[in-house]
This record gives sequence, structure tokens and C-alpha cells, in this order.
Amino acid sequence: MVNIGVDYYPEHWDESLWEKDAELMKTAGVKTVRIAEFAWCRIEPRENEFDFGWLDKAVKIFAERDIDVVLCTPTNCPPLWLYEKYPDSLQWTRDSKPIATGIRGHRCYNSPSLRRLSERVIVKLAEHYKDEPAVIAWQIDNELDAVHCCCPTCTEKFRNFVMSKYGSLPEVNSAYGNVVWSGEYSSETQIIPPLGSYELAWYNPAYMLDWFRFCKESVNDFVRFQADLIRSVIPDAKITTNTWLCDKTPDFHEMFKPLDFVSYDNYPQTKLPDDPEELYSHAFHLDLMRGIKRKNFWIMEQLSGVQGCWMPMLTTPKPGMIKGYSMQAIAHGADKVIHFRWRSAAKGAEMFWHGLIDQSNKPSRRFGEFTELCAEVRRLEIPENAVVNNKVAILYSSEQESALQIQPQTNGFHYYNQLKSFHDGLTALGIGCDIISEKADFSGYRVVIAPTLFITDENVSKRLHRFTEKGGVCVITNRSGVKDDNNGCIMSPLPTVYSDMTGCKVAEFDAVGRDSVKIKMGGSDYRVSQWCDILELCGAESLAEYAERFYAGLPCVTRNSFGEGICYYAGTIGERKFYKDLMKQVLSTAGIEYVDDLPQNVEITVRETNEEKFTFIFNNNGEQIGVEYCGENFILMPFECRVLKSRKG
Amino acid sequence: MVNIGVDYYPEHWDESLWEKDAELMKTAGVKTVRIAEFAWCRIEPRENEFDFGWLDKAVKIFAERDIDVVLCTPTNCPPLWLYEKYPDSLQWTRDSKPIATGIRGHRCYNSPSLRRLSERVIVKLAEHYKDEPAVIAWQIDNELDAVHCCCPTCTEKFRNFVMSKYGSLPEVNSAYGNVVWSGEYSSETQIIPPLGSYELAWYNPAYMLDWFRFCKESVNDFVRFQADLIRSVIPDAKITTNTWLCDKTPDFHEMFKPLDFVSYDNYPQTKLPDDPEELYSHAFHLDLMRGIKRKNFWIMEQLSGVQGCWMPMLTTPKPGMIKGYSMQAIAHGADKVIHFRWRSAAKGAEMFWHGLIDQSNKPSRRFGEFTELCAEVRRLEIPENAVVNNKVAILYSSEQESALQIQPQTNGFHYYNQLKSFHDGLTALGIGCDIISEKADFSGYRVVIAPTLFITDENVSKRLHRFTEKGGVCVITNRSGVKDDNNGCIMSPLPTVYSDMTGCKVAEFDAVGRDSVKIKMGGSDYRVSQWCDILELCGAESLAEYAERFYAGLPCVTRNSFGEGICYYAGTIGERKFYKDLMKQVLSTAGIEYVDDLPQNVEITVRETNEEKFTFIFNNNGEQIGVEYCGENFILMPFECRVLKSRKG
Amino acid sequence: MVNIGVDYYPEHWDESLWEKDAELMKTAGVKTVRIAEFAWCRIEPRENEFDFGWLDKAVKIFAERDIDVVLCTPTNCPPLWLYEKYPDSLQWTRDSKPIATGIRGHRCYNSPSLRRLSERVIVKLAEHYKDEPAVIAWQIDNELDAVHCCCPTCTEKFRNFVMSKYGSLPEVNSAYGNVVWSGEYSSETQIIPPLGSYELAWYNPAYMLDWFRFCKESVNDFVRFQADLIRSVIPDAKITTNTWLCDKTPDFHEMFKPLDFVSYDNYPQTKLPDDPEELYSHAFHLDLMRGIKRKNFWIMEQLSGVQGCWMPMLTTPKPGMIKGYSMQAIAHGADKVIHFRWRSAAKGAEMFWHGLIDQSNKPSRRFGEFTELCAEVRRLEIPENAVVNNKVAILYSSEQESALQIQPQTNGFHYYNQLKSFHDGLTALGIGCDIISEKADFSGYRVVIAPTLFITDENVSKRLHRFTEKGGVCVITNRSGVKDDNNGCIMSPLPTVYSDMTGCKVAEFDAVGRDSVKIKMGGSDYRVSQWCDILELCGAESLAEYAERFYAGLPCVTRNSFGEGICYYAGTIGERKFYKDLMKQVLSTAGIEYVDDLPQNVEITVRETNEEKFTFIFNNNGEQIGVEYCGENFILMPFECRVLKSRKG
Repeated sequence: MVNIGVDYYPEHWDESLWEKDAELMKTAGVKTVRIAEFAWCRIEPRENEFDFGWLDKAVKIFAERDIDVVLCTPTNCPPLWLYEKYPDSLQWTRDSKPIATGIRGHRCYNSPSLRRLSERVIVKLAEHYKDEPAVIAWQIDNELDAVHCCCPTCTEKFRNFVMSKYGSLPEVNSAYGNVVWSGEYSSETQIIPPLGSYELAWYNPAYMLDWFRFCKESVNDFVRFQADLIRSVIPDAKITTNTWLCDKTPDFHEMFKPLDFVSYDNYPQTKLPDDPEELYSHAFHLDLMRGIKRKNFWIMEQLSGVQGCWMPMLTTPKPGMIKGYSMQAIAHGADKVIHFRWRSAAKGAEMFWHGLIDQSNKPSRRFGEFTELCAEVRRLEIPENAVVNNKVAILYSSEQESALQIQPQTNGFHYYNQLKSFHDGLTALGIGCDIISEKADFSGYRVVIAPTLFITDENVSKRLHRFTEKGGVCVITNRSGVKDDNNGCIMSPLPTVYSDMTGCKVAEFDAVGRDSVKIKMGGSDYRVSQWCDILELCGAESLAEYAERFYAGLPCVTRNSFGEGICYYAGTIGERKFYKDLMKQVLSTAGIEYVDDLPQNVEITVRETNEEKFTFIFNNNGEQIGVEYCGENFILMPFECRVLKSRKG
Repeated sequence: MVNIGVDYYPEHWDESLWEKDAELMKTAGVKTVRIAEFAWCRIEPRENEFDFGWLDKAVKIFAERDIDVVLCTPTNCPPLWLYEKYPDSLQWTRDSKPIATGIRGHRCYNSPSLRRLSERVIVKLAEHYKDEPAVIAWQIDNELDAVHCCCPTCTEKFRNFVMSKYGSLPEVNSAYGNVVWSGEYSSETQIIPPLGSYELAWYNPAYMLDWFRFCKESVNDFVRFQADLIRSVIPDAKITTNTWLCDKTPDFHEMFKPLDFVSYDNYPQTKLPDDPEELYSHAFHLDLMRGIKRKNFWIMEQLSGVQGCWMPMLTTPKPGMIKGYSMQAIAHGADKVIHFRWRSAAKGAEMFWHGLIDQSNKPSRRFGEFTELCAEVRRLEIPENAVVNNKVAILYSSEQESALQIQPQTNGFHYYNQLKSFHDGLTALGIGCDIISEKADFSGYRVVIAPTLFITDENVSKRLHRFTEKGGVCVITNRSGVKDDNNGCIMSPLPTVYSDMTGCKVAEFDAVGRDSVKIKMGGSDYRVSQWCDILELCGAESLAEYAERFYAGLPCVTRNSFGEGICYYAGTIGERKFYKDLMKQVLSTAGIEYVDDLPQNVEITVRETNEEKFTFIFNNNGEQIGVEYCGENFILMPFECRVLKSRKG
Repeated sequence: MVNIGVDYYPEHWDESLWEKDAELMKTAGVKTVRIAEFAWCRIEPRENEFDFGWLDKAVKIFAERDIDVVLCTPTNCPPLWLYEKYPDSLQWTRDSKPIATGIRGHRCYNSPSLRRLSERVIVKLAEHYKDEPAVIAWQIDNELDAVHCCCPTCTEKFRNFVMSKYGSLPEVNSAYGNVVWSGEYSSETQIIPPLGSYELAWYNPAYMLDWFRFCKESVNDFVRFQADLIRSVIPDAKITTNTWLCDKTPDFHEMFKPLDFVSYDNYPQTKLPDDPEELYSHAFHLDLMRGIKRKNFWIMEQLSGVQGCWMPMLTTPKPGMIKGYSMQAIAHGADKVIHFRWRSAAKGAEMFWHGLIDQSNKPSRRFGEFTELCAEVRRLEIPENAVVNNKVAILYSSEQESALQIQPQTNGFHYYNQLKSFHDGLTALGIGCDIISEKADFSGYRVVIAPTLFITDENVSKRLHRFTEKGGVCVITNRSGVKDDNNGCIMSPLPTVYSDMTGCKVAEFDAVGRDSVKIKMGGSDYRVSQWCDILELCGAESLAEYAERFYAGLPCVTRNSFGEGICYYAGTIGERKFYKDLMKQVLSTAGIEYVDDLPQNVEITVRETNEEKFTFIFNNNGEQIGVEYCGENFILMPFECRVLKSRKG
């Protein structure tokens, strides 16, 4: 059954508190705890001296109360003695120097010393707990990101990565176009990480994309290395890592391949946006996480209190948020929602990232809401095999994200917002969707939305063609088909490989940035910004035209029949209602029914088994709201999530 | 008698100008000059070769005209030969590298070489002038700040500081909570300064507070070292250092302990703020300076012209400011106001930090105002034993300032503004107050305002309890009692150790940042922002309640009887009129009469001896204004300070 | 005849494209190509192994089609093998470390290795092409800037530069005023570049100005070195370098002395400014370029498409801009307009800096406009000896620019804007002007406008006096005569050496920054900002007075008779219409007729030979506009440039 947990740090608290805490957890309805991800210095206080006594005691206290334990490998924070003795364990900055220690996450994934000492502690840990039934899952490291380490080991590995990919220097030079600015490699020693303080866009984009790929592969390899170690001791261990959205995101799809399930650290913002155009629905991230393995996932860290620490503190979660945002996660496929953290730290830099209980150790409003949550989840009895089934997919690709980070297209243009806009349009119509890899199987979907296919993967292109030809509805956008797999420009009219599907070509474009331009679609006006493809029809019909600038009257959105299917092309980036209205047409084309009069920010999601159906109606607003759904009328309180449970006919 | 002076740099000017300058000073009424704080390269042009000839000549020129001399130790700027020969004299940055020379203030206070060479030059200087009666006081260095030097010497000293404070590594680890993020020290060598480019808030706050303490102690020790040297030659020397408000403020109270009096560099802003909520009254800083030793002080550098240099130039002092801001300083306890500087430099980086006379050497409007000032001060004959006596104190603490710099609480929250708000409220009611150390004696005060007692000093807490119990009126605010002395959180409901006094507890808080929330106090509405403590009454009465958000109706300001006294608690941060209205209640409780109808920015201050009373009425406005005070009506011109002199009955 | 060209990179494209491209160029009307400025790694792929085969082929293809070739020395981008083998070839940053390679322009101009290897490749190149008639000119390097290299070689050279300028350390110390902040040099080893991360204004301004001079001299020397090498092989080579406006501008006048003509990279902004006060006319830059040698010049790179790359992409050139901005360049004296670039790069960091043809290789709207341009220029038959003759000059000085970069005067104050304001006022009245060196000959001009003569060159001052005495009309502004040649303040009332000419003195000034102040001139009101000189008349008459602040009623603009001439003084910085109205008075004084009713942003320029006259009427607006000129009425389309060709009577 879906259940609720907390993150707990026995090593942060006096032992006298452990039993009291566990007792209160039990009373509140906590079923899972995650522990030990930062505890290396206690597990191995001196090199090769291990101490599991304290951890045994903690695990036992939970086990005795039927609270399951998620155990972590502690590699995020090697102890100071390790850095001191094995300085090659440190990441190097773009200044070619080791980073300063004293915070967290300083280790280089490729460091031989780090690997060797990680292996020892992981194996010891796994061996020690392999027969402990309370340990139901393993977390690798913590919030891994694809750091750009410039240490000698990484330099050497990157060089090998490049050479083994291309085979010879002439091939590398040709693939990268190194002749531009006279940068051709004449010796392998010239292949180094991007040092210096230049903006990313100053570097050769082909080289940079390979550098990003290498850095992401380093994380993947570190994950594989750890998963293999755990499985070498516990063959049937259930293993994950808790991922997040950060500056240097890993390749979620590749990173989780060797792992059993996805887990995510979910911190929805506590302040609703002032700008009604801001795309704030974190449901997008939940769908992205579910899409990685197209399976249910866990929340390993969930919003529990005031956030702060390295930033000034933010507004407290409003009444309803603690419960509502957990329910929203469950609605989108979370099988466990583990709250970060049981009690706010009294020491250390993270003390103002508040938990369910404040340092006063006096449970208050937020904890009350949490216990209500536990009770409701227990009452609902949602089986873990209740899954989310959608007919619409949005394609995500780590490649596109990196390429667009390297070369931002215009002011205000963000890859994620491209995806979020469509997700938002669908959500506004009560339609759930999956965010899946562009390399995933498209079968089962009626609509595939493929925003910003900037880097062209031939296979993806082929499969999209096939999907549409066979009757699917496909949506392609501006900045698609721009680049080949080496991040070089494809030398044919945009959207290049997609032109046949879209039935239109980009005659030219206007990168308008934060300025806006009026368009007309079906009798209504919309504002678009950032990017304006000026389209030439070659078979498609125009759905919308610009109403300003020198391209007034020319098409910006088109529809084309391709085989048995339909391909839409959106050559510009619009306001929220543009996506809602565009999605209506797309869904109608695909024969998918939608809810037209859903109040703003109310989200409808369904999880189902063969027998049962759970419909989640979530009010993601600070005010109460009346909703009519399937003939029933509800009043939803702020952030309330109403769950309708029904048996299937 | 209180008098007026100037800062003068004989070494910057051709000798032919010295006598003319001194003659004009005499005519204008200058009584004091400060000299030589940057003259090391002229006093000791080559190692161990000293030249006092030029300085003797300058001192003689002043002495002959009855102008007193303040002589400075020149340690702020060691000569280039010293840095070159003794590179350990340089501060190191957080990158573990010596800072680049060529500007000023590069020396490391703890450097053995710097200490050795400073000792020689200071002793030589003191010996040379010990019998010169014109030299009435000594200034140590210049604008000392608690720089964060990361050099090997400082690293070693910091390590010793930590180890001798805690005794053993386990004690350090426990005090800091180093287990968080696995940062436990397993060897003393791991105790190092905070290197790298991380935000302050990323470091362990306990460790960081100790680092700040160490850096402040390094300044204190450097001051003691110099004071001892001067006194070893001239036992009755009057010694100060000119302090200022900077990024890394020293601990004023500790730094001045070995010194005879406080001096301050006073640069009120020349542009009145556009935002009427901005707290710009520099009277706050003057009261802070007087509070350090609870004695009169000197202004060592006073606003004299257009400011500029490392920033673009700013608007010129408006007519009245040169005179008015000096009189304001005297009103608040300055016994000498030394203007920076006689004439603007014609060379060097500081040339656009203008003096009384421009580089043209043609005295103009500002100089005219300055001579009026000299005449008025001479006419007033204010004795140096005329002191400021107040019944209200505001507590200041360098500990709180550092701790809140390390961990900013929320957007817009500044420690100084917390104090200034109360100071501003009192000023608006014509009430003077002292800004004193939280460790100072509270006796003699009827009201003690203790804003943001973030770090808890048990002794302070005890003395505040005692003060209130015995009939005092105390004001406590949000973010009090949060931390123990190690900058770890106190594990009981806020305001923890003050809860009994306040009669209320913080049920939870909302860190609203720059957003604002309406409250109601006594029938009026106010906007508050940054921080909202939601209070639970345990004996106190509510004086104000929130009128918005989920905590509408709940108390934010309370009053509680404690022993024979009264304790107010202000759980939020309001606009200016909130503090004025709150102070009315506080003053009434304390039986202190205030002026209710004082025009905005008009300040009333009193200095008195046993026989005489000087009442300063200062118009800190750009327009003339009518004031009624004690039955008399005045018209005050912009920035005019009217002084009423009366004999005590 | 004036003609049109393109920048082409054979090395970026498959050889199969070369002939097709050249053929299309010929059809379109291209007469010139520039090639090879970044091709060192192809010309010398390994040390001392040269390959001219590919370049011969490319040159031949152009030669066969009567397309002239500009050949470049490839020194901007040495190959990686050179940096690797000769690390002294790299610039060093202010952190005393070599900069990271991988972008472009990393070479140190003074590096012995760089010089030696540059010499070899330049001589080889010149020898190889000395007899190739298609090569009509040589470009040295690319977009040279006066980088601040802190490498050991530059340090040594800077030290020698300083020592040979002043002769001895006491002279240096005295010239710099090093005694301030005790910075006197006691050893030559202390003379080093400005290391560290301080703001420029923190350094001694005299030292810094010498440092800027040295860095500019390093560029000049590098240019002389290359020009000499080329001429040693091809005595009659026509040599230039393509200059630009950058952060560290070279001294245009000195740098071009050894060269035959000026060429400029011209990228007018594609978005018209939102703020009507913004001075955006790039005509100013064109006049600046023509003024360097007071001869016609070339555009070596001209706006051709969407700009982007290291910045997000910008709005596309509006219809008319491709043609119009080229015509504008010709109007101001360009004899060739070479467009950057033929086709957008498909690889490398610069791919989004778009050319005339997109990567699709499908010529579109912009290319269509380009071919119209080629046709019109061919039709007009403008001889290269058609020159621009003006009666008004504005003085520019690289010294002033550097000095004001080192010490910004107040918020919003920019040296270029000081010049542009006058240029804009003249343009609005249909009056062309030359931007010339302050060291150039003033004869032939009726009006000389000399904005911000901050650093005083005695010779300039004398010549301005003479020019005015003999009947010229001169305009002097605020911040003139402030500094001597060593960047120290002149110790007499401002504008010091110009006071006799201006007949007024600056009693004091107010650096108001971005605030604004009302003034009155001739019955009209204007807003001024940044700087307010408060003037004392000593012979001059007042033309305008302040209408606000404490100096209301006092003069800010004056006119004075001096000898047979007239000297205006503008003591403040006004809005656009202030300059237009002031220029009317100045032009009337000088007896120059102007056009009073020219529509906003319409520019009139004349080129003439002894026989012919070409009048260019350019509509620098996004809307069509009606213009009356010399009795004729035109409708000008957006960015249209109408050329009236007439034979001289």
C-alpha cells in the first residue's frame, strides 16, 4: 500500500531521543524512514575502522515498531580524513584547482581513491545489513548532479571518451568543426575540460555537448558501480537514488537504468507566483519522474516546513500544503512520500531547512496536518499497482536540455518551459500526460508532443515519422531539427528532417526575446514572445498567423496530414491560454475528451488497477473553489485533494 | 571645550603650502589636526632608516599656531619594500593566495614580520614625539576592519583558538555539530579557515561564528599590541583608533577596551532618501559610538565635500549640511569634529573624496560654512564634561551582527535596521537613547530595548530578567533566544529563555520576506514585512493582531507583567509609524514624557554638566520648518541646528 | 568605385561548395571577399610545415570571377600546438596565471615566441601571395583590443616603459603621487601590472593611465611589427586591420598610423531603442572611423543577419536594414562594405552570428535585399575619391576614454555619450561632422566641439586657444582641464587652462548622477542630469541657468568672445533637445546653415568629388516618412537611403 515516511538522522540527536521519536512516528502513522546518507564519518570514523553499533541500534528501534528503513550509501560526504589523505578524491574547478572542502558533495566520481574507499564502505554496509528485513531499499549517494570536474583523472577519462568515440584526431576535428577559430587538435593532450571563466556559449558547442555527455556518463558510471557493489552482496536489493532538478542535471533516463525505481526530492514552492503567466505546477516534475521508468516512483524528500539555509528563509507552507502536496505526489504516481525531515536540525548549515517538527521539538500545525495525511493515506488503501495511464506524452531529452544550456536561444527561452507550457495546457483541460524520453516507445499514445527537438537523433526522428504515419497526432515546435547529433547545424531548411511531417518550412525567424508579438488563432488574439518562426506552407494549413511586425499575416502555427496521422507545428511561444486553446484542437483531432470548464489550477489525475480507480481532484490554489466533475459538485478547500475511489465495472 | 579640526597630509603637498595652510586654519578657527596615518614610506623610506625631519617641521608649524596634533601609527599601509621583503606580512584570500598589493590595508594583523616592523616604527615614533606637547592624542592604524585573512599564520592561530576554546576534537565536533554532512574533524590539521567561494550560509554556522570571533579577536589583539607599545614609551598617552561601519565590522566594545576614547569616521549621506520608509538618521551611528564607552567621543573624519573615488561621485553636500551634520555629532556627544580633509588630494586614488577646499585651493561655499561652524562652536563654549544622559537604552551586540551576517534570516532582514527602527521611533518622539553593549550595566535605564537577541548569552538573559523583575521596561523581538552560544538552535519553544518574561510563545513563524501583511494595533492599521511570529499567549496580553493570511486574528505584539516590570514582545517588523506608536506605549509604561508633535526628522538632543544644559534642535530636512519646543517657536533652516544654552536652576 | 563584398571561410566548408558559392557571389554582384583571418591551423598545421594548397585554390576561384581578395594574417588564433609548445605565447590574467585556451584571441602581443612564430607565418604568407593580383589588401590579425596582459614579459616591458618615461624612481613616485597610501616605489621590481580583483578606481589613477597607455602601445607595436613584415616582402601592400568598439579599445589614431587605411566592423543594433533619449545612431561610429585618418574607410564586417552566439539571439534585421545600413556606411565614407558573412557557420561557437544566407544554404529575404544593394551600388558609380567634407569637428581622444574608464565621474556618465550628444544634435539639424583626434589639425573647420577635455594636453589646449582666437567657434564642456598629463589634478579653478577662453569658472559642482535638474535656456525648459557645474561668470554671458536646487538662477551654459572667436561652455549634460537647440546657436554663430525641420532620425550626408556630388538621405526609422529637402519631397520607406547624384556646376 502507498504510505508515508520521514527522513531521520539518528546521528544528529542524542540517543535519548531516538525511542521517543520512533514512538511518535508510530503514533502518527509513519511507515518508512530513510537514514544514514551523510553518516560516513560515523560509520568509518578512521580509515578502515567501522562502527555499526549506533546504526544497529537505530535500525532496531524502527524495526521493532514496524517502520521500514531505507538505507543509504554515504558517498556524498566522505570524511575529512579521506580528503586529507587522498586529495585525488576531490573535484577540481575550471581554475584547475581542487575545490575547498567544508560543505558537501566535494567528491570526484571518477577518483580512483574515492572509488576504492567507497567500495569498502558500501560492501561493509551491505554485508552488515544484508539479512536485516527492516531494510527494504537502498539509496545511492544523495542528489547526484553531473558536476563538471576538471581534475587530472577526469581530464584523462574525458580524453579517452572523445578518442574512443571518434577514433582519430582528424575525426574529432571534423566532428567538432575545430577549424573555426583555428582550434584543431594536433595532439591528444590538447583535449581538456573547458577551463577558464568563459560563458558556456563561447566554447565550441560540439565539444561542449560531448563534455556534458561525459559528465553525465560519469554519474551514470558511479551509480552503476554502486548498484553492482550492493547487488554483489544482496542480489535482490531494491536500489534507487534520490534525484532532483539542479543546475547540472544528470541524464535521468540513463542514470536510473541500472536501478530498480526512481525517487525524487519534491519541494514545491510555498509562495504562489505573482505573475499569472508563471508555470508553477510541480505536477510537471512529478510526471517527469514517473516517466523515467514509466512506473510509479517514491518521494524521498518532501516539503515539510519553512525552507531556508543558504538562502534567506521563505514563507511557511500555507495550511493545506503539507497534506495537499503529498497527495498531489501520490496522485501522479508516488508510492511512498518520505518527508524531509522529521525534526529540523539544531546544528549544521541546514538548520533552517525546516522539518515537520521545529527545533523546539513541540509538534505544531504542520505536524498536525502530517498526521492527518498519514491517516488519510492509510484509509484510502491505494495499492502500489495502481498506476497512471495516459494517452498523451510529452518528450523530454537530457540532450536537448544540455544543448540549450550551452547555447541559450534567446532571452527568456528555457527548455523546461517549452515542455511545461504544453503540460500546463493539458492540465487546464483535465488531461493527464506522461513526460517520457524521446527514446521511449510511443505505442499506446494517441498524442506525442515533441517540443524543441533541437539536437536531432535519427532514430527519434524516424520513430516520430512512423508514429504519425500510422495515425498518431504529433506536435513539433520551433527550434526542431536545428542540429545534428554532433551539435552542428543541419544544412537544410528548418525544421529540416521534420519538414515532410510538418508540411511547412521556416522561411526565416525573428528572435524577439522578451518583446511580444500579437498573433491570431481561430478568431482570438494571443501574445507570443521569444521566438517567431515565419512559416512557408508546403502542404500544411495555417492555424494561426502573426498580426504584427513585417511578417503580419504569415503563418506561425500549422496542421498537416501525414500518412494516417496529423502533425501540428507551433513556430512560436505563447501565453498560457494559447497552449490551452491549441491543446483543445490537438485533443479533438486525437478524439480525446477534455474538461473545458475546470477552474484555474485545479488538477485531475487518475490512478487505477484492474479493479479499482482512484480519481484525485486537487485544488492547487490558496482559496477554496467549487468544482463540478462527472456530474458531482465539490467544494475544495485551499490545497485540498479529494480522492474518489471506485470499483471498476 | 568642544572644538573643530581637520585631517591634513603634509606629505601630499609641497612644503611651500604648509605654512599658508596652517595660517588659514588658524584664521578659520581650526584647533586640531590629525596627521601621518598613511606616511610609513616617508617615516621609514628604507628598512630601519627613519626620517622625522619633515614631520617635525609640520608638527612645529601647527604647534606654533596652537593647533593640537593627533598623531597616527602608520600601520595601515606598510611600504612596498616591507611587503616585498617579508611576504608573510600580506593577508591571504579565501583562494589561499596573498592578496595583490597596490591599494591599501593589505597587512595581516597576525603576521610576525608585520608585528616586528610595526613595533619598531611605533616605538621610534613614540620616542620621537613623547615630549612634544602639541601631540595630544594617538590614533592606531586607520579604519581597522575584521578582515578574514586565510594566511598560514592565521590558520595556525585559528586552529589554536579553536582547540584552546574546546580542549579536544570530540568537544569541537560536538559544539559545532560537525557530524552533519559528515564533517567531523579527525585531526587538528583539518581546522582551517573557510576557503573557497561558497556563500557564508553554506558553512557550519557554529564554526563560522568562531571564525568571525577569531577575526575580530585578531583586530583586538593588534590594537592592544599597539596601545601597549605606545604606553611603554608614553605612559599617559591618550590613544584611540578611528572606527567605521564596514562590511567586516570589528567588535567595537572589545576593540576599544584598551583605548582611552572612541573616535568615528562620520559620513552622513548627502542625498536624502527617496523612500520615506528608509531609516537614514545617522544619529543612530553617533549614539552607537557614544555607547561603546558610554562616554563622549571624537569624530576623526567628518563629511566635507563631494564623495567619490572607487565609486562614481555623489551629490554635493547641500547648504547647511557641513555645519549641521557637525553640530549633530556634537549634540550626540562628539567633543571634537575633525573634518576629512583640509584640501582634496591632487594625486592618488582618493582625489575625488573631496575635502573642505577643492584642488583649486580656492576656498568656496563649503569652506565658508566650515568657518561659520568653527565660530559657532567657539561661541557656544561646550565643556567636554557636558554629557548625554538618557533613560532608554537599545542593546547592540557584535555577536548578533556576525551571526545574522552568516545566516540572513529572510529577504530584507538586517540586524542594524532592527535597532534603527526602535531608535527612529524614539527620535520621532524627541527621546534620546543610548546604544549600548548587551553586556553593559542596565542600571540607570528605565527602558531597555533588546532587538533580535539571536545568540543567547546566559548572562545577558539573566540580567535582562533581573532588570525587568526589578521594575524595568524591556522590549524583546522576534528571532530572540534562537541560538545558544555555539550558534546551535536552543531546543525549546521560541523565544526560549525569554518566554517567561514575554509571557508568550511562538507557535510558528512565517518568513514573508519583502511581502507585507496588515496588522491592527489599537484601532490603527500597519504594514509589517520580513517576519511574522504567530504568538500563543501564556500570560501576556495582546497589543496587536495580524489582519491577513491564515493567522489573521492571532497576536503579533504583546505586553506582559514580569516581577515589578513589564516586558513587551514585538514578533514582527513594521513600517516606521508602527515603531513610533509602539514606543509611545513603552514610554508611557515607563513614565517617560515624550514630544508628540515633533516634525518629521527634527531631532532633539541634550548635553549637560552639573551647571549647564545645551539643548540641540536639529532640522534634518532639506526644507525650513517651524518647531514648537518648550513653549518657544523656532523657524529652522534646512539642516540648521539651534542650540539652547541654559544654566541649571 | 565603391563596392560590396562578403567575408568567406573556405576552410569551414566542403570544397564542393566553393565554386557554387563564388558563382552565386558573382551573380549577386559581390566584388570583394575577405579570407583566412582564423586559418593558422590550416596554413601551418604543424610547426614549420606550411600548406597553401587549399588557399591557392580558393583564391583562384575568386580571381577567376574578378572578385578581389583581402588576405589576413592569422595571428588572432595561433594553433593549439603553438600554445602547448610555447606557453609564453599566452596572455596572463590579473590573477598572474595564463588564460585558459579554447576560445580565441589568447595570444600575448609581446610574447617573444608569438612574435617569432608570427613572423614566420606572415612572411611565408606574404611571399606566397606577393605576386597574386587578386589580393588587393591585407588585414592584420582581427579585432585587436588593448588587452591587459599581466604575463612576465609584459610586466618587464611595462617596467621599462615606466622607467624610460620618468628616468628614476623618485620621478615616478612624484609623477604618480605614490606617497598617498604609502605606495612609493623603493625598487623597480615593485613596478608591476594592476593585479588582483580591485575595481579600476581603487588604483592610483596616474599609474593606471600609464598602464592603459602601455597596453595600447603594445597593440600599436604589434601592428607596426606586422605591417613592417608584410612590407618587407610586398613594399606596396595596402594594409589595414579591422577595428571595433570594445571594452579595451585600442588607440585608433596611433594604431592606424603605420597602416594604409581604416577598416571597421559595423554591427548596428537591430532593435530600435525603447527610450527616445537613447543615442543609438551608429553614424557616430562611422564618422569616428572616417576621422581616424580623415580619409574614406572600409567596412570589413557588416550586419547580415540575426546576431547571437555568446549571447542569446537578437531580433532579426528588419526589412530595409541590410541595405539601408550599408548605404549609411557608404554615405559616411565607406568605400567597401564587406558583409559578415556569406553563410552562417554550421559549426563552432559563432554559428548563431548569422550571415546573409542561413545554414540551410537557401538564400532568402536578407539575401534578396543584399543583391538589391549590390545592384544599387553598382548603378550609383560612386568613385572612391568622393569624400565627405564638413565644417564641424568633434574631438575624440583615447586618453580621455581611458582616464574616464579608470575614474567614472558619476552615475550615468560615459565619455562616448558626451561626444554622441553633440553628434546627435548636429545630425538632427542635417549637419555632418567629423570626429577627429584632439591632436589633429583644426584648420578648415568653423566649429570645434571639444567635450570633456579631462586630461590636459598642453598642445591641444594651445591649439584650441589659437583656433578660437583666430575666429573659430569652440565648445568646451564640464570635466575639462581637470587633470594634467599624469592624471593628477590641476590646482586651479576649473576649467583651469580653459578658463580664459570660456570666460567663466566652476564655483562648485554637483554630481547629481541619475537624478535630474531643470534648467532654462532661451525661454525653454530642459532636464539635465549627471553633472551640474555651477558657474561664475568672468566675462562670459549666461545662456542658460538652473531652475532648481540651491543653485537655481546660476548659469550652466555660457558664451564668451575670445580673440576673434567665440567659446561656448556647457557645464551640464542635457536631454537630446538641449543639444539640438544649443547646436542651433553654435551653428548660427559660425554662420553655418542647418535644416530645422528634419524628421527625427533622418540623416543627410554628402560625398563629393570635384565634379560630382552624392547626397544621401537616410530614414533611420521603422516607419516610412515624408521628407522635404532642397525643395523636393520624398517618401522614404523604413531604412531607405535615397541618393541624389548631381554634377557640380
